[in-house]
Amino acid sequence: MRKKTIRTAKKPGLPPGSLLHVGQQKLNAVKMTVHSYTPAEALEKQLHPGEELAAFRSTDAINWIRVTGLHDIGLIEQLCTAFGLHPLVQEDILNTEQRPKLEDYGDYLFVVLKALWVENEGDTLTGEQVSLIVGPSYVISFQEGDYDLFESVHSRINSDKGRIRKEGADYLAYALVDTIVDNYFNALEMLGENIEALEEVLVVQPGADALQQIHVLKREMLRFRKALWPLREVIGCLSRGDSSLVKDSTLLYIRDVYDHTIQAIDTLETYRDIVSGMLDIYLSSVSNRMNQIMKVLTIISTVFIPLTFIVGVYGMNFKSMPELDWEWGYPAVWILMIAIFLIELKFFRNRKWL
Amino acid sequence: MRKKTIRTAKKPGLPPGSLLHVGQQKLNAVKMTVHSYTPAEALEKQLHPGEELAAFRSTDAINWIRVTGLHDIGLIEQLCTAFGLHPLVQEDILNTEQRPKLEDYGDYLFVVLKALWVENEGDTLTGEQVSLIVGPSYVISFQEGDYDLFESVHSRINSDKGRIRKEGADYLAYALVDTIVDNYFNALEMLGENIEALEEVLVVQPGADALQQIHVLKREMLRFRKALWPLREVIGCLSRGDSSLVKDSTLLYIRDVYDHTIQAIDTLETYRDIVSGMLDIYLSSVSNRMNQIMKVLTIISTVFIPLTFIVGVYGMNFKSMPELDWEWGYPAVWILMIAIFLIELKFFRNRKWL
Amino acid sequence: MRKKTIRTAKKPGLPPGSLLHVGQQKLNAVKMTVHSYTPAEALEKQLHPGEELAAFRSTDAINWIRVTGLHDIGLIEQLCTAFGLHPLVQEDILNTEQRPKLEDYGDYLFVVLKALWVENEGDTLTGEQVSLIVGPSYVISFQEGDYDLFESVHSRINSDKGRIRKEGADYLAYALVDTIVDNYFNALEMLGENIEALEEVLVVQPGADALQQIHVLKREMLRFRKALWPLREVIGCLSRGDSSLVKDSTLLYIRDVYDHTIQAIDTLETYRDIVSGMLDIYLSSVSNRMNQIMKVLTIISTVFIPLTFIVGVYGMNFKSMPELDWEWGYPAVWILMIAIFLIELKFFRNRKWL
Amino acid sequence: MRKKTIRTAKKPGLPPGSLLHVGQQKLNAVKMTVHSYTPAEALEKQLHPGEELAAFRSTDAINWIRVTGLHDIGLIEQLCTAFGLHPLVQEDILNTEQRPKLEDYGDYLFVVLKALWVENEGDTLTGEQVSLIVGPSYVISFQEGDYDLFESVHSRINSDKGRIRKEGADYLAYALVDTIVDNYFNALEMLGENIEALEEVLVVQPGADALQQIHVLKREMLRFRKALWPLREVIGCLSRGDSSLVKDSTLLYIRDVYDHTIQAIDTLETYRDIVSGMLDIYLSSVSNRMNQIMKVLTIISTVFIPLTFIVGVYGMNFKSMPELDWEWGYPAVWILMIAIFLIELKFFRNRKWL
Amino acid sequence: MRKKTIRTAKKPGLPPGSLLHVGQQKLNAVKMTVHSYTPAEALEKQLHPGEELAAFRSTDAINWIRVTGLHDIGLIEQLCTAFGLHPLVQEDILNTEQRPKLEDYGDYLFVVLKALWVENEGDTLTGEQVSLIVGPSYVISFQEGDYDLFESVHSRINSDKGRIRKEGADYLAYALVDTIVDNYFNALEMLGENIEALEEVLVVQPGADALQQIHVLKREMLRFRKALWPLREVIGCLSRGDSSLVKDSTLLYIRDVYDHTIQAIDTLETYRDIVSGMLDIYLSSVSNRMNQIMKVLTIISTVFIPLTFIVGVYGMNFKSMPELDWEWGYPAVWILMIAIFLIELKFFRNRKWL
Repeated sequence: MRKKTIRTAKKPGLPPGSLLHVGQQKLNAVKMTVHSYTPAEALEKQLHPGEELAAFRSTDAINWIRVTGLHDIGLIEQLCTAFGLHPLVQEDILNTEQRPKLEDYGDYLFVVLKALWVENEGDTLTGEQVSLIVGPSYVISFQEGDYDLFESVHSRINSDKGRIRKEGADYLAYALVDTIVDNYFNALEMLGENIEALEEVLVVQPGADALQQIHVLKREMLRFRKALWPLREVIGCLSRGDSSLVKDSTLLYIRDVYDHTIQAIDTLETYRDIVSGMLDIYLSSVSNRMNQIMKVLTIISTVFIPLTFIVGVYGMNFKSMPELDWEWGYPAVWILMIAIFLIELKFFRNRKWL
Repeated sequence: MRKKTIRTAKKPGLPPGSLLHVGQQKLNAVKMTVHSYTPAEALEKQLHPGEELAAFRSTDAINWIRVTGLHDIGLIEQLCTAFGLHPLVQEDILNTEQRPKLEDYGDYLFVVLKALWVENEGDTLTGEQVSLIVGPSYVISFQEGDYDLFESVHSRINSDKGRIRKEGADYLAYALVDTIVDNYFNALEMLGENIEALEEVLVVQPGADALQQIHVLKREMLRFRKALWPLREVIGCLSRGDSSLVKDSTLLYIRDVYDHTIQAIDTLETYRDIVSGMLDIYLSSVSNRMNQIMKVLTIISTVFIPLTFIVGVYGMNFKSMPELDWEWGYPAVWILMIAIFLIELKFFRNRKWL
Repeated sequence: MRKKTIRTAKKPGLPPGSLLHVGQQKLNAVKMTVHSYTPAEALEKQLHPGEELAAFRSTDAINWIRVTGLHDIGLIEQLCTAFGLHPLVQEDILNTEQRPKLEDYGDYLFVVLKALWVENEGDTLTGEQVSLIVGPSYVISFQEGDYDLFESVHSRINSDKGRIRKEGADYLAYALVDTIVDNYFNALEMLGENIEALEEVLVVQPGADALQQIHVLKREMLRFRKALWPLREVIGCLSRGDSSLVKDSTLLYIRDVYDHTIQAIDTLETYRDIVSGMLDIYLSSVSNRMNQIMKVLTIISTVFIPLTFIVGVYGMNFKSMPELDWEWGYPAVWILMIAIFLIELKFFRNRKWL
Repeated sequence: MRKKTIRTAKKPGLPPGSLLHVGQQKLNAVKMTVHSYTPAEALEKQLHPGEELAAFRSTDAINWIRVTGLHDIGLIEQLCTAFGLHPLVQEDILNTEQRPKLEDYGDYLFVVLKALWVENEGDTLTGEQVSLIVGPSYVISFQEGDYDLFESVHSRINSDKGRIRKEGADYLAYALVDTIVDNYFNALEMLGENIEALEEVLVVQPGADALQQIHVLKREMLRFRKALWPLREVIGCLSRGDSSLVKDSTLLYIRDVYDHTIQAIDTLETYRDIVSGMLDIYLSSVSNRMNQIMKVLTIISTVFIPLTFIVGVYGMNFKSMPELDWEWGYPAVWILMIAIFLIELKFFRNRKWL
Repeated sequence: MRKKTIRTAKKPGLPPGSLLHVGQQKLNAVKMTVHSYTPAEALEKQLHPGEELAAFRSTDAINWIRVTGLHDIGLIEQLCTAFGLHPLVQEDILNTEQRPKLEDYGDYLFVVLKALWVENEGDTLTGEQVSLIVGPSYVISFQEGDYDLFESVHSRINSDKGRIRKEGADYLAYALVDTIVDNYFNALEMLGENIEALEEVLVVQPGADALQQIHVLKREMLRFRKALWPLREVIGCLSRGDSSLVKDSTLLYIRDVYDHTIQAIDTLETYRDIVSGMLDIYLSSVSNRMNQIMKVLTIISTVFIPLTFIVGVYGMNFKSMPELDWEWGYPAVWILMIAIFLIELKFFRNRKWL
């Protein structure tokens, strides 16, 4: 059984804005990479501690700062301070047990998302929290591990594919969210395949571990729900276009992601209904099996108990038992017993037990 | 068991508007037909690749372009570009795993619907996605297969039956949606007949496959729900008359379709309740059967086990067993056993087991 | 088992407004009666095909035209045309599988209702669709059968009882709706009595047909729900007083019917909860019964199987079995067996099985 | 089992405002008492039929007219007419199967409530409908029986305790409603004690009547729900302060009652959840018990059936059975049987059946 | 089993504002402590009965008055009167069976909260009601027991950590609420650990007490729900910034607590789903176990009953039974029985019972 200690609590009563990493350290060192691009060119650069960061805050180019690893609180704080992020935002970035949400701080948006993916074919569901800071000309993304979730966005920037180099930071943010939502469909597809496989098993030979698998599926769907339902609100909120940071031309794309999210939720809810139905099938197949067992027992007992009684009768040692002395007594008993056997057979046939 | 791999995922991170056919190739070649009609006359013409398409965008006649087959991406793109459709719309047309939706792009409406029908009498439910583009004087419909869903609309245009030739593109769109909704009722009727047949079976002789059939019915109802509930929103949205593309005179008809949709949902929900109740009946009939089996076993055992004990007693080989030497010992034992048998019979009668 | 084929579908793709009777022909001939009344006098007249109908559209008197039977499409069409009803309204009147609804066409209201009643004492639930057209000075009511649902309204008009002769067409419509809602309470009372009777049965002697009856009750409640819930919307909508056809003085009465509808829904939902609880009682009584059977089997087996073993031991034919030669061997075995029997009895007592 | 015939129906089609007492006659005679009070003094007077009632409608003093008993329709009508109450209000007062509601008739409010109380310690839940008419300077309360629900309000008026004598009719109405809500908490406490007692029983020795008690508890909670949920609306509506009959200074008190209502609903819903859980415990304890019974049966059978087979073998009468002639044959069989017995014991130990 | 008598009722009909302590006396004496602080300094002082209290109502410093113990009604009343609190507020403070709520009295806010915590590692959930009065420059907190819930806030004030000394009474109130919400996460973590431990048990060896533990978990979650859901409303209401007592700069922090509350609710609901699933696993494991028992019984019976019949046959005492005289009769019977045994073994293998 999968074991995961859910650690969601910090020491109560800490002053707000106290920086504390709630989560796992997945990497040795925190890595910061900046992608600067204009329609004309795209640069990629590794950032080192102590480097001047505020310069990236407002340049002509669009800057995408990718942070992987959250355990080096000093570094994160330095970055956040350079971009003038509110202490509460800093606290939330470091807490990976957040719920997907969107906060509008006027000159930047703070978005928390849950990415879910299937690392290798047939693998189980993996996931982590992704936080985004979206400013007028920069996007900062925070991840705990180094799974290259945004590889395709990265390569689209470098190879100038699509409109990404021509658009602003809001379009970049859209591209990142879109990638996360596209990954949900991959993960849902794997889930769907697991459900189908389990359904096959339930029909053929339902065992005790089928229930365990139903339980695991249910847990994974719970995880999905926790990622998807609040995401819908987040993107729905974005698509309403209240923030001046999101250009009107980008809204259309955001509405497209919104549709995809709804569709993912739809698929998930359908899976939930199917899995609920599977439990009914499982339980009913268990009780059908019980019926089978009971039938066998009953048939055997009902056939042999009366016969055993009869042979018992003629095993008694009474002095005067006339039947015992008859010449045809023994064959007669056999004929009697075969007759009883046939009557019982007919009884079972009538009840459709045979 | 029906097996259908649900493929809903595309490669994550593709730029938006990337054209990719998500679905099945059902036909050899994509076919495009245009129906042009005015109150006075109606023409029908096959379109070929490379033909000038933009001409159909604004003519005095109403043009209905029917596209069957979606796998020829180049052709679809050419058509869409000629009518100035947004790249995201093009992407959605090619993805047949959409959720029913309505999008207003100002100079055209984009509608996605799920058609469901019963091809032959007694056949299972078939379905596919239908996308509509509704412009000021044209309607484009996209289907994956060549089932002639809109045959009646087609013939009404040709034979000038009803008001269709006198009305605009919005009325044509209404007629198409109305046909799809009418088909739902046919499919629901088949569903209702299956439910009734299954109910009959459950009362007479519920077997293990009854559960399987309940499960199949549930799945088909899930499919219906996914088609119907969002459709209600789509038509509800249309009927509010926000779009200038829909004339006021058409609104009344759209509200009529809306009523039909609600009625279809109502029927579906009633079926759901009935099918849920059937599961209860099934499970309870299984446990009643178990009770029957147990009763038979218990009666047989309870009758014969004590008797077998008695005959066992007189099968013992003790030197001095006075009963064995009695003259009437053997008949006395028979009388004792018959008495026990009668007492037990009375006991079962009292408990209403017999 | 009750068998009713639900036929809700028409041929898909018919032009809107195509007149087609969906339902049953319950009468030989369609009958049209007109009740004309002023505060001073009340007249009743049979209408015949071909008669001038438009005259009744606006007179000083209030005209109530009652149509019983829907299968004579020509006649219905003639009437509807005379009163200028929209083709879609005509289509809906002829389709008796409508959902209760209210449509405001400006100069008349179109109301669809489901009447439910108990024809004779102890009879099952009967019902049919009632459509009303409410104009400034006329009301047209359509029914499929000739059950005299509105007898009391009729007699109130004739005998000038209450305010009905002093009020307008809106008050007449109210009186008709009120009669239908009052009938619901009668039907609900019968339902309540059935539920109580079934409850009694469940406590005394629950059999397999109890479940069947629960199922029938559930179905009838479903039918009620389909009539009541949309009715609530309809009357709620009327009571808001948006239509100029409904006078303010009538609104108070309509709100009273609204309250009654809510109360009927309340009662219905309470019944639903009670019936759900009955299923639990039934299932648990079935498994209690199983427990009883198992107990009897176990007690009998547990008592006699060991004793049978003992008598078996002394039925063996070994040359040297010292016990067999003892003088008190046989009585000793009996004492042993009685001791075992008493110990087992105590065991059952401790477990409260006896 | 408690038997109560729910009679909610009147003859359909009666004209609105027809006075008809729907309920039980609990008293011999209808009693009318008037409490007139000013900040300075409080008077109490019995009213007799034919007395001049309209005088109480507007005096300087606050008049509280208490009516107990509803079966004397003439008397009630006389009172209602004296205070100018609408015929529909009169009809509703006489119908004790109303749903809690609030109606604002401009110069008076009409409030229907359901009082619930526990008459004696440990008694079952009793209840009746209370209707209130709240005018500018008078309150009329209607009850069917003579349980002195409002004793404390009465004594507060007489002894000038609290603010009641200084305030108007709206405060008096508040005090009456508050008393009813306080009684709910008493009744809920009794319910809570019953639930706890039943829970104790379920853990120690769950019998068939436990289910019956769960069912009774569920029914009482249903009754509570029907009283409480609409009450919440009623008081919520009052607390919004739309009526000019309710002074702003009283609103604060009404909001307090509103909070109490919410709290009562909360407690009720918690009880519902607990009682639902109890059903699970009950059912599972029943199946655990079944398991116990099966285990005993299986152990006894599994131990003795093979042994009985062995002794059967040596009870056979074959001529040549060498074992029977061995000197140690008999003890050897005993050793064999004891060995089998010990092996089976170990088997049961391993399966934790012993 | 945990036993807690829920006492929520007071004597019905008491005038509003009657002071009465509903709850437990947990301390010997009521203690009042005041913390006065300015950005420059922080003082702590014990208050004694009879002391001048109104002085703390408006000073330049921020005053936090902590009251522990509620049973000394006189003292509480004196304090409340000094701060001009409404009688209904006083009544609510003394009633510890309140629902979390927020009331805005213009010059002060009244907040009721439910604190929940785990006193020692591995301990069960403890909780009590905390009432807060938030004025322009003072906060009064009421608790029933002396658990030092707010220790960290206290020490932050004394050591001037964070912004607390620089901010007003609204920030202090926020800090108190934040501490309570942080404690929820600790308690939820303990709950999560209990759920995981129970899940482990269910997989390995589910016993009858597992159900009991599920029931206890459900009860604790119910308690959480009753604390959390209304809290969400309370904080949501605060965060909307309607009260002039809450400064805009504090709103950001309140929104942060709001997010935490939502997250706690989310976690709780996930736990609920998991625990519901556990019940299914438990019930199914019980019925699997039953199946196991039945299988053993059936195999043993099915194997030995026919064999016992055969040996019974040759135990009969008929004069002429040719088989008994055959030389190889005895070994032949053994061969027959072994053959039957092997056939049955194969039968069980085919059914996968072995």
